[in-house]
Amino acid sequence: APSCRSSRFNVPPSALLVARPVGVCSMMRLPMQASAEGLDAAFVGVPLDTGTSNRPGARFGPRQIRAESAMVRRYNGSTGAAPFDSLRVADIGDVNVNLYNLPDSCRLIRESYQEILASGCVPLTLGGDHTITYPILQALAAKHGAVGLVHVDAHTDTGDTALGESIYHGSPFRHAVEEGLLDCGRVVQIGIRGSSYDPEPHKYCREQGFRVVPAEECWMKSLEPLMREVRAQMGDKPVYISFDIDGLDPAYAPGTGTPEIAGLTPAQ
Amino acid sequence: APSCRSSRFNVPPSALLVARPVGVCSMMRLPMQASAEGLDAAFVGVPLDTGTSNRPGARFGPRQIRAESAMVRRYNGSTGAAPFDSLRVADIGDVNVNLYNLPDSCRLIRESYQEILASGCVPLTLGGDHTITYPILQALAAKHGAVGLVHVDAHTDTGDTALGESIYHGSPFRHAVEEGLLDCGRVVQIGIRGSSYDPEPHKYCREQGFRVVPAEECWMKSLEPLMREVRAQMGDKPVYISFDIDGLDPAYAPGTGTPEIAGLTPAQ
Amino acid sequence: APSCRSSRFNVPPSALLVARPVGVCSMMRLPMQASAEGLDAAFVGVPLDTGTSNRPGARFGPRQIRAESAMVRRYNGSTGAAPFDSLRVADIGDVNVNLYNLPDSCRLIRESYQEILASGCVPLTLGGDHTITYPILQALAAKHGAVGLVHVDAHTDTGDTALGESIYHGSPFRHAVEEGLLDCGRVVQIGIRGSSYDPEPHKYCREQGFRVVPAEECWMKSLEPLMREVRAQMGDKPVYISFDIDGLDPAYAPGTGTPEIAGLTPAQ
Amino acid sequence: APSCRSSRFNVPPSALLVARPVGVCSMMRLPMQASAEGLDAAFVGVPLDTGTSNRPGARFGPRQIRAESAMVRRYNGSTGAAPFDSLRVADIGDVNVNLYNLPDSCRLIRESYQEILASGCVPLTLGGDHTITYPILQALAAKHGAVGLVHVDAHTDTGDTALGESIYHGSPFRHAVEEGLLDCGRVVQIGIRGSSYDPEPHKYCREQGFRVVPAEECWMKSLEPLMREVRAQMGDKPVYISFDIDGLDPAYAPGTGTPEIAGLTPAQ
Amino acid sequence: APSCRSSRFNVPPSALLVARPVGVCSMMRLPMQASAEGLDAAFVGVPLDTGTSNRPGARFGPRQIRAESAMVRRYNGSTGAAPFDSLRVADIGDVNVNLYNLPDSCRLIRESYQEILASGCVPLTLGGDHTITYPILQALAAKHGAVGLVHVDAHTDTGDTALGESIYHGSPFRHAVEEGLLDCGRVVQIGIRGSSYDPEPHKYCREQGFRVVPAEECWMKSLEPLMREVRAQMGDKPVYISFDIDGLDPAYAPGTGTPEIAGLTPAQ
Amino acid sequence: APSCRSSRFNVPPSALLVARPVGVCSMMRLPMQASAEGLDAAFVGVPLDTGTSNRPGARFGPRQIRAESAMVRRYNGSTGAAPFDSLRVADIGDVNVNLYNLPDSCRLIRESYQEILASGCVPLTLGGDHTITYPILQALAAKHGAVGLVHVDAHTDTGDTALGESIYHGSPFRHAVEEGLLDCGRVVQIGIRGSSYDPEPHKYCREQGFRVVPAEECWMKSLEPLMREVRAQMGDKPVYISFDIDGLDPAYAPGTGTPEIAGLTPAQ
Repeated sequence: APSCRSSRFNVPPSALLVARPVGVCSMMRLPMQASAEGLDAAFVGVPLDTGTSNRPGARFGPRQIRAESAMVRRYNGSTGAAPFDSLRVADIGDVNVNLYNLPDSCRLIRESYQEILASGCVPLTLGGDHTITYPILQALAAKHGAVGLVHVDAHTDTGDTALGESIYHGSPFRHAVEEGLLDCGRVVQIGIRGSSYDPEPHKYCREQGFRVVPAEECWMKSLEPLMREVRAQMGDKPVYISFDIDGLDPAYAPGTGTPEIAGLTPAQ
Repeated sequence: APSCRSSRFNVPPSALLVARPVGVCSMMRLPMQASAEGLDAAFVGVPLDTGTSNRPGARFGPRQIRAESAMVRRYNGSTGAAPFDSLRVADIGDVNVNLYNLPDSCRLIRESYQEILASGCVPLTLGGDHTITYPILQALAAKHGAVGLVHVDAHTDTGDTALGESIYHGSPFRHAVEEGLLDCGRVVQIGIRGSSYDPEPHKYCREQGFRVVPAEECWMKSLEPLMREVRAQMGDKPVYISFDIDGLDPAYAPGTGTPEIAGLTPAQ
Repeated sequence: APSCRSSRFNVPPSALLVARPVGVCSMMRLPMQASAEGLDAAFVGVPLDTGTSNRPGARFGPRQIRAESAMVRRYNGSTGAAPFDSLRVADIGDVNVNLYNLPDSCRLIRESYQEILASGCVPLTLGGDHTITYPILQALAAKHGAVGLVHVDAHTDTGDTALGESIYHGSPFRHAVEEGLLDCGRVVQIGIRGSSYDPEPHKYCREQGFRVVPAEECWMKSLEPLMREVRAQMGDKPVYISFDIDGLDPAYAPGTGTPEIAGLTPAQ
Repeated sequence: APSCRSSRFNVPPSALLVARPVGVCSMMRLPMQASAEGLDAAFVGVPLDTGTSNRPGARFGPRQIRAESAMVRRYNGSTGAAPFDSLRVADIGDVNVNLYNLPDSCRLIRESYQEILASGCVPLTLGGDHTITYPILQALAAKHGAVGLVHVDAHTDTGDTALGESIYHGSPFRHAVEEGLLDCGRVVQIGIRGSSYDPEPHKYCREQGFRVVPAEECWMKSLEPLMREVRAQMGDKPVYISFDIDGLDPAYAPGTGTPEIAGLTPAQ
Repeated sequence: APSCRSSRFNVPPSALLVARPVGVCSMMRLPMQASAEGLDAAFVGVPLDTGTSNRPGARFGPRQIRAESAMVRRYNGSTGAAPFDSLRVADIGDVNVNLYNLPDSCRLIRESYQEILASGCVPLTLGGDHTITYPILQALAAKHGAVGLVHVDAHTDTGDTALGESIYHGSPFRHAVEEGLLDCGRVVQIGIRGSSYDPEPHKYCREQGFRVVPAEECWMKSLEPLMREVRAQMGDKPVYISFDIDGLDPAYAPGTGTPEIAGLTPAQ
Repeated sequence: APSCRSSRFNVPPSALLVARPVGVCSMMRLPMQASAEGLDAAFVGVPLDTGTSNRPGARFGPRQIRAESAMVRRYNGSTGAAPFDSLRVADIGDVNVNLYNLPDSCRLIRESYQEILASGCVPLTLGGDHTITYPILQALAAKHGAVGLVHVDAHTDTGDTALGESIYHGSPFRHAVEEGLLDCGRVVQIGIRGSSYDPEPHKYCREQGFRVVPAEECWMKSLEPLMREVRAQMGDKPVYISFDIDGLDPAYAPGTGTPEIAGLTPAQ
């Protein structure tokens, strides 16, 4: 098996040396490791979709993201990002979820993330429907206190109960607010759009102090000015980044479960 | 809108009179009705897949079965079956399931079926993953006592707990046995196959008195002799027929969630 | 079956109360009704594609639009639109078309729309290839006189005969002009593009007084200024809106039958 | 361009000499020729699907059959068939159909086939929905008188009017009977199945003297005995072979427009 | 991460304990290991398809086989096979192939297999197009001498040069014969069919002493008698089993690159 | 067969006269011709994908481009382009490639293009992976000397060896530089993006004097100013235009083998 470590850091193996279809698919074909011990950052899969209200399938999200990630190389020549030059990163596999019981899956996720965070490692999550962000934020806040949030999504995911349940993919940030997991003045939600059950769909978010940036404020614009404002808003305290693939326009990610037209572009 | 009733019975509208793509898709394009009142038999959808252990998607089963059913005509010329000549049949829509809570979905299904059965109507279910058979059998047994069962499937679905849960798509008949919903001497399971967690996979079923007909006993054979035996086994007491699409070979139904090779054919 | 009416108006059932996969798919899961009687607006399907010159399939357009519409909620929080607060809307099913005879299908559509319009209801059509707009305009003009037209499309659809026939998906607006169904000074065609049989493809349209807005005038621009001009052009007289899905770039709607690259975006 | 002629006969080019993806796709990558002049047999496409009652798409049938035919080699080692050793065969392209007018398409097909037959060439048709067999039989009978028919199909295609039309994909053999194009005692229909509008679906056929072999008589059997009987039935007078892809089980040809389960297998 | 070892043997983790979508996809979700050291048998991927003459894609074969293998459980209840009770099995990843140079890929495969065989482990290969069997047989014969061969395929793969090359997916067994890698009296080829370049397609094979069992000798029959004969033919000397997915009928495996109709069934 | 020639020029047949699905698919359904003799420009297919590092399939590129090209008409009304009014254009089929040997395929391509160029015809290539540009440039430079290059792509394709090989789809322009086939001051590469193996991914290109326009410089902008600069850069000496479909964002061409997000749009 070809080596994919250079000095003390792991690097995605170059397709110049290892053919792209080669290898059991870890994220970016990085080495796999049983725990987060000794890592600066770790890819973790959370293969769950039983919290979704429309098309399921995100349970296979981690598997497919890993498969497609065989294309990713170690440097970003445009931005100069070179994460693998200074961070030890690996893929530590998936959380074992309970497909038949959402609250129990949340418990399993929370416990797994507490263990990852205890080792000092930063988790990079491959989802999974958005329900999973609730237990992840629980684990983060237990360590760091209330965190800031950069949230890219078509939906605010601050819903109340649905079909009689409080835990599902539309409510993680409502729970997070109610349990004090978010530093609400440092929350921004970007790309929000779509029809709503309420004539004032962002009222709850704004009452909490969130900044809501609807998709229509992003159309046909560079988001660099917004990103500068977001950086100022976040300051230098802990921040969680939550990216829902439906934040993008469905043209770029047609497989998403709850598509909303007129979304963000990859360039943004 | 073209009529699809003849005298006192409903009939699927003929494609000679109503073009096949025409109409909001009810089952066989039969009339839709809010309740089972006054019907001999009713198609009911149970759009649930949160009990599945592998590929989800069966929540859209009722929708797709209805769409494809636009091809079905009122007579079966080969067998002489002419159900619409003597039975009043309609589509009564779907049970409203709780996508985020399996036990609660089971309650909703059971209550809906109790209501359907109270009206004297025979329910014809469009699933949905196999979890739904458990509450359906509860409703049936509450009315008829323990019932016989003709069960076509790749799996016996008599599993114990999975991922810590007792309710999921692998266990409905275990629950049915435990709650006395089945007349165990009048149970036959046909098409069973696939690898197993146990070296003696049919032991539990046979201990209950079920007849298990593995797929290999069906290969390349007419099942008419078996069907005669099954009719004798069932006698003239109430019987429930449960057909899991994975009983068929995946060549005939590739979209099934837990495919097992070497299954039954549609002719069988 | 869960209720989807509030006071005297129908509303799309909330997915917080009725699971998205539940129900026989009417448009937005609104109530179904046999006729347009008593409605302010009605969704009507016209499942026809025998007028198409390239890829067929639009006969299943109404069925698929209804299926996907299960995602749509009652309010548009961005624009403030709340149609279901003041209009009684239902789905009245499909026109029964003659798949084998285009002129006869046109007659069937025209007659159905005359009946719908007679009840004072506004039809909201789910197509179907663009041929169907010709008989719809006949019915509209019979009631309202020549109407204005906002037409979003890749093609002007003002062609002369094709393969010897005058009725097909490329000619509805030619017929409409010739029969005086359009108030030609109040016609705008937006998103027009693609190669042509004629070096001056918009000559006919401009000679009639239509405003033609080619796609290249829309690229990477907000269309709000254009929309203001269109509103002024239309004035307060009756207007028909005809939206051909191929007006959008094929990235957003790849299934369209006659795709042309470099089209409009959903945000536009 | 590599040669694909050997002596005076054309042969499909060997993939050992010409790579399979190479070449503008004619049938079996045979030479193309503008007319049937000088050929023993000619492949002809009839890209029409406006006669179909359910899923369209067969208009692209000739194109796809040609693309997939790049796999076919010149000999059949099992049967010993070596058609290209003694017959001059080419692809003469498609009949130009009128997509918007079925009766006119029938006229165009009939005229094209009269021309092909006048040259003494045997046409091998790539369809197209089954409507096209009607004008082909007209052309054949004009030359040969009433012909025998070996017809493999899920449906007898002897329907009366549909949606008010007499010409569509369900009626070609009804027209053929009525116009005396068939030698009815030498007609066999194999693989017939599916639900029906009539409790006695084969009555019309049998009254004409056709032999009808329902699919259930073919299940899990070699059809060699039947083929011997068919050869005897046909004798040595002219016979037309009409193979509808839905004669096969949909597992083998899922794209067919009007699928019926439990059909024939390719081996049969 | 959940354990998947029991005592000294590895076992596929039960989906009752570890949810099916969980985990980086090794074969049957078995443990992964860098080398074959200490194993009785090892799954090895050879992700190569540059030897194919028609549709490529088999380079992703190992990845997809691993993904689908998440369904496989540890016992075969029908046959009593319980391989994981007595053999230590793991997934040792893929051979690093040279996508741009077939002979060099053959060298890389041969060398990898020599290493695997040196450790005393039996390789279980996930392909890849059939070219790869040539270097695998070279490695095997270097250790065991000429081996017997049970070869299930639509094609004999004993071709001579193609497009001027001797190494491609149609020739591995020609090379094997020429280099003395096969014990030709102990070779059986099953499921052979399809059109051919030669009127006597099996002549070469039979001249070498191979038994060729064409598909037509297998149709609608149990293959148990044949299997008994094959066991007798093989005796107790080393045998290689080579299973080309196109041995099956394309209904069961439509993605294969060179499909031939009327093949074997999974039950066979 | 309908005529598609007007006076001395060929023109794509109008879909008003010849139905779109009709005809064996040449490019734009233009006449086919065995050689380039007498043509101003010729479409040539190069159906090769064995140089690709990720998803193969481009070997069927020429076939699919031809199939989709049935939509293209003779004029571009927006730009006024009317190529068929003054140029004699035909489809001359495909180069016969060696699927199993990349360097030999390069030789075959080079020789074919030398022959085409010798006749004075301009080749318009339908690929095929990007490896094929290397032998094409060899043939061009042999006739015209070093040429300018307008190269639209996600990648610069100036890589050194990969998997030990120098010829593959990532290196054609490296070879071109080394063999003096390019007039390096007249090279522009547009749309370049994606992660890289090197922190300075464009260094080599810029050292050769290429202009590199990364995708981020194109985002949400008209490229007309750039096109004016490119025209000035190219001057009036010979220029080759090489368009890799992955230059576009994958939303517009999802089937490409090595997709990179955030690419160009068709309008650009």
